[in-house]
Amino acid sequence: MQLYSFFNSSTSYRVRIALALKGLSYAYTGVNIRTGEQRQPDYTRLNPGKGVPLLVDEQGNHISQSMAIIQYLDDTHPQPRLIPQEPLARARVLEVSNLIACDMHPVNNLRILGYLARELGASDQQKQDWYSHWIREGFDGVEGLLERHGFGRCCFGDEPTLADVCLVPQVANALRMNCDLSAYPRIMAIYEHCQQLPAFIQAAPANQPDVIR
Amino acid sequence: MQLYSFFNSSTSYRVRIALALKGLSYAYTGVNIRTGEQRQPDYTRLNPGKGVPLLVDEQGNHISQSMAIIQYLDDTHPQPRLIPQEPLARARVLEVSNLIACDMHPVNNLRILGYLARELGASDQQKQDWYSHWIREGFDGVEGLLERHGFGRCCFGDEPTLADVCLVPQVANALRMNCDLSAYPRIMAIYEHCQQLPAFIQAAPANQPDVIR
Repeated sequence: MQLYSFFNSSTSYRVRIALALKGLSYAYTGVNIRTGEQRQPDYTRLNPGKGVPLLVDEQGNHISQSMAIIQYLDDTHPQPRLIPQEPLARARVLEVSNLIACDMHPVNNLRILGYLARELGASDQQKQDWYSHWIREGFDGVEGLLERHGFGRCCFGDEPTLADVCLVPQVANALRMNCDLSAYPRIMAIYEHCQQLPAFIQAAPANQPDVIR
Repeated sequence: MQLYSFFNSSTSYRVRIALALKGLSYAYTGVNIRTGEQRQPDYTRLNPGKGVPLLVDEQGNHISQSMAIIQYLDDTHPQPRLIPQEPLARARVLEVSNLIACDMHPVNNLRILGYLARELGASDQQKQDWYSHWIREGFDGVEGLLERHGFGRCCFGDEPTLADVCLVPQVANALRMNCDLSAYPRIMAIYEHCQQLPAFIQAAPANQPDVIR
């Protein structure tokens, strides 16, 4: 398999964690989204969605969108399962995962912050306020859902699921942006736990071949 | 079952389409997200994620996040299936669905447009430009993926899947915001086809009990 990824992209990070948890090896191709490589014709031919990550599977199928890729990996390489099969357990995992993947990450990613500065003249402080606002909105919800339905050392049990795969990159991102996360003890305990696991270490931005220090 | 919904919310609209396609009846409770009802304590007790839609199932389980709700409905009421079970077919449906659900809808919804105006002083024209920009970015990708992998009168075949359930509300939203969609013939043909189907008509914003005209 082959993964097109950017070291610091949260959605790429999700897929790298999933691949590592499943013990799958792959060729890594860095796509620098800071310089716009994802918008070059050579790349959009591979992925009309113009983003990372993009997975090329053993049969040559090109699949984009991190949530679709991880479901595909879970279907084709089910050990260990990251998305439960029992309907309510699956709903609980997808609820937290999608709160992060739909309500949090997309409004705070590089392209949005770039537009705010470039087109709307937002200052660094206004970008920081924007970022922190949506982190609070989202993590208030995640913490509330985990208080209600979570259990174990990860979001849902002692083994990582898609919820942890989404949560850890989002927390890492928020810490990088200097957000105060002290109001989220459950989220932080899960983050600290997962950060010790080999798959999460292997998938971390700092450990990718295209890291920019 | 009970659905907390707002007539004009795209994510509520998705769930209403899914419920209608499956022929499931439910009690409808309107939550006016224009006046902030989703942020009132009476509602956040039900959904810490502070949004619509929220499904309460036959056993009293509360599930939020449209993508989680629809997967849950597909697992518990599988006829007709909206998410294929074969891994690659499922990946194709989820790829288009998530491009809309993650990359398009969240950056253009009411809370974001409100923040742009309130906190960043964006003019109506700047909000329109923002909206149109992300519609183009997203639909360029959707049209490209459908050209490559789509077939039949819907996104993937002649019967609606989750991809159509996500696409139709997004197109309706873009038309309401006066976006030029002439560059997307495949998307528009699918939209026009689905708009004729009884489930999509039943689920449309104009046909909800809380419609505001």
